[in-house]
Amino acid sequence: MRPSGRQLSEMRPVSIETGVTKHAEGSCMIRMGDTHVLCTATIEDRVPPFIKGSGLGWVTAEYGMLPRSTTSRMRREATAGKQGGRTVEIQRLIGRSLRAGVDRVALGEKQITVDCDVIQADGGTRCASITGGWVALKLAVNKLMKAGDVISDPLISPVAAVSCGIYAGQPVLDLDYPEDSEAGVDGNFIMLADGRLIEVQMSAEGATYSRAQMNELLDLAEKGVSELVAAQLAAVG
Amino acid sequence: MRPSGRQLSEMRPVSIETGVTKHAEGSCMIRMGDTHVLCTATIEDRVPPFIKGSGLGWVTAEYGMLPRSTTSRMRREATAGKQGGRTVEIQRLIGRSLRAGVDRVALGEKQITVDCDVIQADGGTRCASITGGWVALKLAVNKLMKAGDVISDPLISPVAAVSCGIYAGQPVLDLDYPEDSEAGVDGNFIMLADGRLIEVQMSAEGATYSRAQMNELLDLAEKGVSELVAAQLAAVG
Amino acid sequence: MRPSGRQLSEMRPVSIETGVTKHAEGSCMIRMGDTHVLCTATIEDRVPPFIKGSGLGWVTAEYGMLPRSTTSRMRREATAGKQGGRTVEIQRLIGRSLRAGVDRVALGEKQITVDCDVIQADGGTRCASITGGWVALKLAVNKLMKAGDVISDPLISPVAAVSCGIYAGQPVLDLDYPEDSEAGVDGNFIMLADGRLIEVQMSAEGATYSRAQMNELLDLAEKGVSELVAAQLAAVG
Amino acid sequence: MRPSGRQLSEMRPVSIETGVTKHAEGSCMIRMGDTHVLCTATIEDRVPPFIKGSGLGWVTAEYGMLPRSTTSRMRREATAGKQGGRTVEIQRLIGRSLRAGVDRVALGEKQITVDCDVIQADGGTRCASITGGWVALKLAVNKLMKAGDVISDPLISPVAAVSCGIYAGQPVLDLDYPEDSEAGVDGNFIMLADGRLIEVQMSAEGATYSRAQMNELLDLAEKGVSELVAAQLAAVG
Amino acid sequence: MRPSGRQLSEMRPVSIETGVTKHAEGSCMIRMGDTHVLCTATIEDRVPPFIKGSGLGWVTAEYGMLPRSTTSRMRREATAGKQGGRTVEIQRLIGRSLRAGVDRVALGEKQITVDCDVIQADGGTRCASITGGWVALKLAVNKLMKAGDVISDPLISPVAAVSCGIYAGQPVLDLDYPEDSEAGVDGNFIMLADGRLIEVQMSAEGATYSRAQMNELLDLAEKGVSELVAAQLAAVG
Amino acid sequence: MRPSGRQLSEMRPVSIETGVTKHAEGSCMIRMGDTHVLCTATIEDRVPPFIKGSGLGWVTAEYGMLPRSTTSRMRREATAGKQGGRTVEIQRLIGRSLRAGVDRVALGEKQITVDCDVIQADGGTRCASITGGWVALKLAVNKLMKAGDVISDPLISPVAAVSCGIYAGQPVLDLDYPEDSEAGVDGNFIMLADGRLIEVQMSAEGATYSRAQMNELLDLAEKGVSELVAAQLAAVG
Repeated sequence: MRPSGRQLSEMRPVSIETGVTKHAEGSCMIRMGDTHVLCTATIEDRVPPFIKGSGLGWVTAEYGMLPRSTTSRMRREATAGKQGGRTVEIQRLIGRSLRAGVDRVALGEKQITVDCDVIQADGGTRCASITGGWVALKLAVNKLMKAGDVISDPLISPVAAVSCGIYAGQPVLDLDYPEDSEAGVDGNFIMLADGRLIEVQMSAEGATYSRAQMNELLDLAEKGVSELVAAQLAAVG
Repeated sequence: MRPSGRQLSEMRPVSIETGVTKHAEGSCMIRMGDTHVLCTATIEDRVPPFIKGSGLGWVTAEYGMLPRSTTSRMRREATAGKQGGRTVEIQRLIGRSLRAGVDRVALGEKQITVDCDVIQADGGTRCASITGGWVALKLAVNKLMKAGDVISDPLISPVAAVSCGIYAGQPVLDLDYPEDSEAGVDGNFIMLADGRLIEVQMSAEGATYSRAQMNELLDLAEKGVSELVAAQLAAVG
Repeated sequence: MRPSGRQLSEMRPVSIETGVTKHAEGSCMIRMGDTHVLCTATIEDRVPPFIKGSGLGWVTAEYGMLPRSTTSRMRREATAGKQGGRTVEIQRLIGRSLRAGVDRVALGEKQITVDCDVIQADGGTRCASITGGWVALKLAVNKLMKAGDVISDPLISPVAAVSCGIYAGQPVLDLDYPEDSEAGVDGNFIMLADGRLIEVQMSAEGATYSRAQMNELLDLAEKGVSELVAAQLAAVG
Repeated sequence: MRPSGRQLSEMRPVSIETGVTKHAEGSCMIRMGDTHVLCTATIEDRVPPFIKGSGLGWVTAEYGMLPRSTTSRMRREATAGKQGGRTVEIQRLIGRSLRAGVDRVALGEKQITVDCDVIQADGGTRCASITGGWVALKLAVNKLMKAGDVISDPLISPVAAVSCGIYAGQPVLDLDYPEDSEAGVDGNFIMLADGRLIEVQMSAEGATYSRAQMNELLDLAEKGVSELVAAQLAAVG
Repeated sequence: MRPSGRQLSEMRPVSIETGVTKHAEGSCMIRMGDTHVLCTATIEDRVPPFIKGSGLGWVTAEYGMLPRSTTSRMRREATAGKQGGRTVEIQRLIGRSLRAGVDRVALGEKQITVDCDVIQADGGTRCASITGGWVALKLAVNKLMKAGDVISDPLISPVAAVSCGIYAGQPVLDLDYPEDSEAGVDGNFIMLADGRLIEVQMSAEGATYSRAQMNELLDLAEKGVSELVAAQLAAVG
Repeated sequence: MRPSGRQLSEMRPVSIETGVTKHAEGSCMIRMGDTHVLCTATIEDRVPPFIKGSGLGWVTAEYGMLPRSTTSRMRREATAGKQGGRTVEIQRLIGRSLRAGVDRVALGEKQITVDCDVIQADGGTRCASITGGWVALKLAVNKLMKAGDVISDPLISPVAAVSCGIYAGQPVLDLDYPEDSEAGVDGNFIMLADGRLIEVQMSAEGATYSRAQMNELLDLAEKGVSELVAAQLAAVG
């Protein structure tokens, strides 16, 4: 029933390749089916003004899509002169999600910026960015710990994200683009490794959903996140 | 336990005053406690390019805060040269939520723009904007129907929104600013009058929440929305 | 002869309601007929760089119109990415006019920002902004004096503004929008309570005027300003 | 008493050199003492959208200052990314003033853009721009008439502008920069050749003025404008 | 003598991997040592306004760097609100260079946009972009020819680019970043396969060079371009 | 054969008038035929952040064109909201070229900004800007030396620039606009007085050129630059 022939609760194949760029303190290419996102983590000694002197660290994120990561070419945001509303929403979500898994006292006054750049898009780029972004973040933190710049691990738990939605009347896990563009209800679930929730965003466009459906989607999301966490842990060794 | 002395499931007093500006096709001032939002609806005969010729209508929204609607003065976005990320997120949410209650075929090729301008802020401005925005929209649609420009009512159901969160370890309904700035978990629930969900956004910053808590928050939201819908229906007569 | 049936030298009904928003140090809603402007005053301890360390205070103003304050909806300036030329002109005029009534030595190194936001427009919004802006400024200054942060009153005199023009060949006082859009000659007179001039801006578009007419307009303006000053003094008690 | 040693009612030496650039349809360099402005007029067959098809013409103006036209270097507005508030005010004034002397029916559906670029500034640049701008406009119109593209002269009268102010307690004509930066009251008077008024802008900063002073300034302005009109007529032959 | 141990006239290892993204009409990843650039070509049926109706085609290019393609993180241009001067220069060069190898009559009224996004930078990104950009362009053109949308091959010849410079007093070929940041003289040579020149840009910063040196650099460039053309032809089969 | 009737190796008449504006530390109007550029040099005591404290000076340049310096009116860049790509390229080139002739240690921690504003354009404006810019720079440096603010002359040599190209199959020197708009190959050569090269930019659009032609163009450029240097030295006395 799904365009890809997948089961309702079946994820696309996930792979996470680490160390893909030589400059970043942490990096990976995450592939969820045909969605490919390059994630890099950059450590800086300065923090944003609003926490200067607090002893706390900060984790933030930026998101972008290459102009031809999509079926038809998108205008480059640097040419347009600003980031679009969708981009701003997504990068705020990535940053907030990753921070939920960080002990900012343990990190100390450092900022880690996670850049998520979509090389090829086929649905679910924000979830892939969070899941891959955590891997890049972890690798950068490992470098800090190895160098003794941080004593106790500031990462409380992996953070992973998966999309779910109602496609052709059925709850499905990990929507690809053909599903995403048809589904009247879809959203993202972001969780820690133990299934505790960080963020739920479930929205309908030209449709609505019941609490019972909401529960089915949460069940699917728990399954998906546990698989992603396994892939994350394998990647960071 | 709540700073305002309210019960956990108690809303702030709600009032919706209609017809507050003479130019707009629909307008109201919604007050949820000390949060006051002026909502106006504007009807135009043109639609966005991507639906031109489709026969479908469009409902969109814009959101703004007066510079001194807040405790300390905020920079005017027109001076800053762009709308901030938070503003963009909120106005996209308002538009998407209102559209979920609209039969766009019945509306026909018209655009209705709902402007939500915060006169005074004390938490929950986006929820007040959606709830008040629906009232302005309804009044504008009534004008269209009276004039015979629209035959069958394009508004399927009231759309209302309420915030919930976990404050001092307890689930609470309709957070005001003192609660909002302390709560580690909070979000917004947007529903039709019958309780079907349009959008759930529940996010944690420096905290997480369980599925059980998610369920308690959904219960609170259902109570809040039913009270708001009653106020909306009273306002539009 | 006037569309509203008013006498040539008759103002619209004026009301000034104070204390309309809980956060601002001073606030009022001024209504000149159907023109409604919300004015708030914000006190800050910092001054602009060019007077830092001089011991002098500063008063500045910003102006905006809600998108649907006008007959047809205007584009929101925050969306357009900048303030238009008309907005910039008006807010510079408001600031300059209010400063003419301020003893900046007595104020000391503080900045007061007066925000004038047009809720509903029917001509004469810049004059209403100056007249109402002075009331908000006065209320904020009263707060400073009560707290002992300022010793002697830095406000020398009320500052008020009124528009005049030549409509259908006749000099008229306080133009509303139907008159404003027809008048070939119109402008604004800003004065202290004793009638001394702060600013005269009288311009013609597709027309010209004689010195004799200029004098008649000045006579009207003096009458108008004296009525406005009475309303200001009543409002601030 | 004046820094330059001039009499109270004495203008600076004025010269208007025409035909200073080979591309423009009309051009001149106007020099009022050390204030030098290059004015060019460009004729285009298109008019702004709001008068398309009306049969009426349009005259508009733009104003700029070279970065080192001033005592210390100013930031280039093209680098700053926008025209400043002062620039916008001035170019709107130039356009409005020139249009007051134009019969837009006689011009027909053409647009003439007058560019006024300050090569060297020593006070009074906006007045020099209007006075020189009219000369460039006249030369362009002459070209249209010679070519038979316009039948009857659309220029009703010369338009000229002069600044006046109160310097060291005395009303003075044609302020230079040292006077301008000291004067508490100053402004601009724009008139037709016969002395009828187009625009009066008289503003005080940290001062006020009486009606009697206003009258003295108007007397000075009439004298100044008549001298400028003589120079304009000599220049256009 | 070179930091990499290369001979003066030795290029870095070059590889060109084609078909690296599924959406673009042509794509490759070019690697010149540690400089990696993703090039995609997009075919569109519309051409820029200035050649509409001319029957001629257009080839243009855009260039970007991922924020962490460099040793320390660069600010994202989309966040900065505009493309920097260096970016604008580079993308104009890429477009101009590629067009020199195109028969725009044979292409017909189509636009091909070549996007060059630097994944990892180690000097020479603009040359890699041109060389890889031609491969993406060729693959897109092949698709047009296969589909019969173009009859005769609009690509006259491969276009390739290489950097040369004077490092430690010696002329060297294909500078990497450590050389590039030290060299007082460096530049880019862009040629057709037969060695005819398209563009020479050789600039000194804090140094100068003689005609004899210019000739030595041209000799090196010819050697480098011939190796790059061999790699291009191998890649496009 | 050339539209102007000049010989292949004949420059346009060159004149350099110094001291043309009273505020700038150095200024000249350079005229190469009908191309007229006003060049001013401004000395400031601050340097850019990246060399603060280094003891080194900085020379930078900005470039602009008056809207009607061209055959048809160009949009003012301040109105467009940014400098175009061509402007950015040119001003970077001017700055880089002038710096090549500066001993930045001898200059000390000062910044000199050279503004080049095109009053009238007829091809070759960037070359005229460099040649005239050096004269303005030299005059400003002379002022510094006279005042004892600089001990040894920081200007190593004159810097001059000339355009060359292939027009109607023949190499020509100093292209004017009619030639420039036809030539398939053209570029700029920037040299010291002794003929050592600072920058070569030779590009083809819809054409290519051989090494033999490159050599002929270099010969022409050497001739042109030597004539320009003579004019520069005459101008600075």
